[in-house]
Amino acid sequence: MQQNYNRLTSITFEALKQIVGQDFISTDKEQLEKYGQDETEDFVFYADVVVKPQTTEQVSAIARLCYEHQIPLTTRGAGTGLSGGALPVKGGLLLSTEKLNRILDIDTRNLQATVEPGVINYVFQEEVKKLGLFYPPDPASWGSCSLGGNIAHSSGGPKAVKYGTTRDYVLNLEVVLANGDIIWTGANTLKYSTGYNLTHLMIGSEGTLGIVTKIVFKLIPLPKHDLLMLVPFKSAEKACEAVGATFRAGITPSAMEFMERDAIDWSIKYAGEVNFEIKQDWEALLLVEVDGNNLDVLMQDCETISGIMQEHECDEILFAEGAEQKNALWKIRRKVGEAVKSNSVYKEEDTVVKRAELPALLKGVKAIGRKYGFTSVCYGHAGDGNLHVNIIKGDLSDAAWENDLPQGITEIFQLCKSLGGTISGEHGIGLVQQHYLPLVFPDYQLTLLRNIKKAFDPKVILNPGKLLLDGII
Amino acid sequence: MQQNYNRLTSITFEALKQIVGQDFISTDKEQLEKYGQDETEDFVFYADVVVKPQTTEQVSAIARLCYEHQIPLTTRGAGTGLSGGALPVKGGLLLSTEKLNRILDIDTRNLQATVEPGVINYVFQEEVKKLGLFYPPDPASWGSCSLGGNIAHSSGGPKAVKYGTTRDYVLNLEVVLANGDIIWTGANTLKYSTGYNLTHLMIGSEGTLGIVTKIVFKLIPLPKHDLLMLVPFKSAEKACEAVGATFRAGITPSAMEFMERDAIDWSIKYAGEVNFEIKQDWEALLLVEVDGNNLDVLMQDCETISGIMQEHECDEILFAEGAEQKNALWKIRRKVGEAVKSNSVYKEEDTVVKRAELPALLKGVKAIGRKYGFTSVCYGHAGDGNLHVNIIKGDLSDAAWENDLPQGITEIFQLCKSLGGTISGEHGIGLVQQHYLPLVFPDYQLTLLRNIKKAFDPKVILNPGKLLLDGII
Repeated sequence: MQQNYNRLTSITFEALKQIVGQDFISTDKEQLEKYGQDETEDFVFYADVVVKPQTTEQVSAIARLCYEHQIPLTTRGAGTGLSGGALPVKGGLLLSTEKLNRILDIDTRNLQATVEPGVINYVFQEEVKKLGLFYPPDPASWGSCSLGGNIAHSSGGPKAVKYGTTRDYVLNLEVVLANGDIIWTGANTLKYSTGYNLTHLMIGSEGTLGIVTKIVFKLIPLPKHDLLMLVPFKSAEKACEAVGATFRAGITPSAMEFMERDAIDWSIKYAGEVNFEIKQDWEALLLVEVDGNNLDVLMQDCETISGIMQEHECDEILFAEGAEQKNALWKIRRKVGEAVKSNSVYKEEDTVVKRAELPALLKGVKAIGRKYGFTSVCYGHAGDGNLHVNIIKGDLSDAAWENDLPQGITEIFQLCKSLGGTISGEHGIGLVQQHYLPLVFPDYQLTLLRNIKKAFDPKVILNPGKLLLDGII
Repeated sequence: MQQNYNRLTSITFEALKQIVGQDFISTDKEQLEKYGQDETEDFVFYADVVVKPQTTEQVSAIARLCYEHQIPLTTRGAGTGLSGGALPVKGGLLLSTEKLNRILDIDTRNLQATVEPGVINYVFQEEVKKLGLFYPPDPASWGSCSLGGNIAHSSGGPKAVKYGTTRDYVLNLEVVLANGDIIWTGANTLKYSTGYNLTHLMIGSEGTLGIVTKIVFKLIPLPKHDLLMLVPFKSAEKACEAVGATFRAGITPSAMEFMERDAIDWSIKYAGEVNFEIKQDWEALLLVEVDGNNLDVLMQDCETISGIMQEHECDEILFAEGAEQKNALWKIRRKVGEAVKSNSVYKEEDTVVKRAELPALLKGVKAIGRKYGFTSVCYGHAGDGNLHVNIIKGDLSDAAWENDLPQGITEIFQLCKSLGGTISGEHGIGLVQQHYLPLVFPDYQLTLLRNIKKAFDPKVILNPGKLLLDGII
C-alpha cells in the first residue's frame, strides 16, 4: 500500500518560518532545482520547500511539524551522493544540513571531536591535522562531501583499507527522530555494550531512521610519514592478483587503489597532465601507499611490496617524490569519477566482494559487458575488494540502455553475491539500487528491514521512496 | 503488560525429540541447575528443558516450535557472562550452542574464517595462529568463553585498546529469527553499505533479536613480536593519568591494563606466586604491551612509554623476559575476576568513560564507596576507559547490601554518564543492569529499543526478561 503524504500549506509554511526564520527557507524554483539533484546520473526531483536549520532544536521542530502533517522530510548533506539517497523523490520538505556546519570541540585529551553533520570532510581533516590528529575516512569527494552524508552511507575512501570506514570512527550520534524526539545513540566511549547499538544502526541508514544533528568522532594520532608508489601492469587481472598477495604477505598498505587504463586516460584528460609517460601497453595501475611513524620500516614495506608486484609482472614502479607528485597522483585517482561523468551518460555500480575475488569480479564484469554490449570503466578500492564499475552508455541505443542493461546489472550483482559480496560497499542503496535488493535478501528479510523502519518512523515521513521501504504500513 | 508464556507439554517435548534426538535434550534436575547459572553473582534459574542442537536447521525448527507455542527460548554460549544474559529467567527452553562448535573454514586467501557460535575463543585463536593469522578479541575468560557469547556482548579484552572489540571482526552472521526464518545479516566483505546494518545490530543484542548460528570473522596477520612491561605506581590516580598521556604521545599499546593493589594481592593469592617482589607501597600496576613486526620499533616505543611512566612517578619498571614470565604476568590480570569472586560476595560493575576521565572515575568510585560504606576492587582496560568495579560485600550488612547499595551503584553510573560514559563497556545489560538503563536513556528511547525488539520478535520469546524489554506488547 502506498503512503499518502500531504503538501505544504500556508499554515505549515508559516510554522516553518517561525522555526528557522524567513532567510533559511526557500521555495524559489532555481533553489528547488539545485537541491533536487545530487551526483547520481541526471535525476532532478522537486521538493516543495528547502529549509536550512541551524540548531538541533530547529531540526526537532521541523520533524515534529512534518510528523504531525505527514509531510515527506528528506535530509541532504552536500549532495555528492552516488545512489540518489538525498533526492526528495516524494516532494515535501528538503532539509539541508549546510548551516549545521560547526566543529564544536576537538578534545585532544581524549582524542575525540564533536561536530555538526554539515562540516565538510576535508575541512575537518585539516583542522584535526593541525593538532597532530587524524580522521582517516576520505571519500573521493572529500573536498565537498559532508560528514553527515558520510554517515548516511558509512562512506569509505582509499584509506579504509587500513583504517576502516566512517563507521569505525563514530562513537556517538545526536539524532532527531521522526516525531522530533532527540536522542544520543550511545556514549562517547571506545567500548559500548549497553543495549542495541543505535549508533551502528543509524550509520548507513541513509536518512530513513532519523536526522543526525551531532557526531562524536574518535580520532587517532597522525602518522608521521607516508610513501606512495604507482605500479603499472600490462594485465589488469595480474594487478588485482597482486593486491591479495600483498595482504597475505602481512603488509597492510594505507591505500591500495586500482585503475583500469580507460580510467587513467579519462582522468588525466579531465584533470590535467602528468610528468611521466603512460605507456601504451599498460592495462591497469595500482596506487599503493604505506604510512606510519618509522620511515625505515616504511621503506622496508615498499621493498617487500615491490617484490610482490614484480612477481605479478608489473612494469617499472614509480615512487612519488615530494608532496607535489603525491598530490598529482592522488588527483588522477580522485578525479576518475568526475572524468567518467563528463564523458558520457553512465551508471555507476559500487560492487564489493571478498578481497581475493577481485580478479574474478573484474573478469566477470567484462564478460557480462560483452554479453550485453556495454563497455565499463573500472576502478576503486582494490584492497577492500570494492570496485566501482562505471557502465558507459557510449553508442548503446536508448532501448538497450533502458531495457537490457538492468539485466546486465543484475548479472553483475549476482556475480558479486556468488563471490561473497553484495551490491554496495560504500555508495548505499538510495534510490537507484533499491530494486536490486531482492537479489541479496529474501522477502522475509526485506520485511524485517521494513519493520525496523516502522519502529523508528511509523508514518514513513523520513526520506520516503528509498531503500525499498515504501508502502510499509 | 506482562507476556504470557506456555510451559513445555508432552507434545512440544516429543517434537523437540524429533528435531534434535533424545541424546541432545535434558530435563534432568542437575543439568537444569548447571544450565541455570552463569558467572553472575549466585543466580540460578531453571529452564524446563536444555536442548543442544547441532545444525542451523535444528535451531530453526526449535525456534519455530517455540514461536508457535509461545515458549521462552534463551540461548546460552559457554555460561561465562557477567550480567546474567544467558539465564533462563522465564523458564521454557534453554538452547545451548555447545554442539555448534565447528571451525568451518579458515580462508587464508581472504583472511576470513567461518565458525559456529559454540567455538571457544582460545581454541579459535590458536587455530588461526597456526596459519600466521590473528583474531585479537581476548576476554579474560578466553579459555572458556564462546565466540557466540562474545558476539552477544561485543566482548572486548586487553587487546581491544589497539585492535577493537568483537564487533570490529565480524563480517557476516547467519541468524535464526524468532519464527525460525534463517538470514545472513550482510556479506563477507570488508565494506558494506547495503541497507540497515543487521550485523552490527545483532552484535551486542544479547540473544534478544535472534540466534547466531554461523559467524564470518575478519582475520589479520599475526604480529611477529610483542613486549610486555609491568609498571608499579604508588598512586593509583597517577597510574590512570599515565594511560592518557601514553596515547597522546602517539603510541597505541596492544594492551594497557590497570590493577589496583587489592586486585593484585587477591589474584596472586588465588593464582599462585610470582617471581618478583610486590612492594608494600605499590598502590596500582599497569600492564603495558606493545606488538608489531619490527622489534627495534617496539623497543623504541617501550622507551618512550617508560619515559612517560617515569614522568608520572612510577616505581621501577619490570620488563617481562620470555614467554613464561609474560604468561605469569598475564595470568595475574586474567585471574583477578575469579579471585575476587572466590573471596567474597560481590557485584561487578563494568563502568566505561572517556579514556582521559579514568582518574576522575576511580576517585569518584572510591568517594561513593566511602559514602555508602562499601569497599571496591578496581581493575580493567584502562586504555579503553573501561574499569571493572568489583564491589565487595565484606562486612556490609545484608540490609545495606540489598537496600542501600543500589543507590550507590546508581551514583557510580551517574558519574560515568557525566564523564561521557555509560553503564557497560563489554559485559552487557542482561539481567542485572537493566534497571539502571533509565539512567542513560530517556523513556522514549527505551520505547524505541522495545519497538526494535518487536520488529524482530513480536511474541517476545527470545531471551525474555532481559534488557528492559519485558511487557513490550
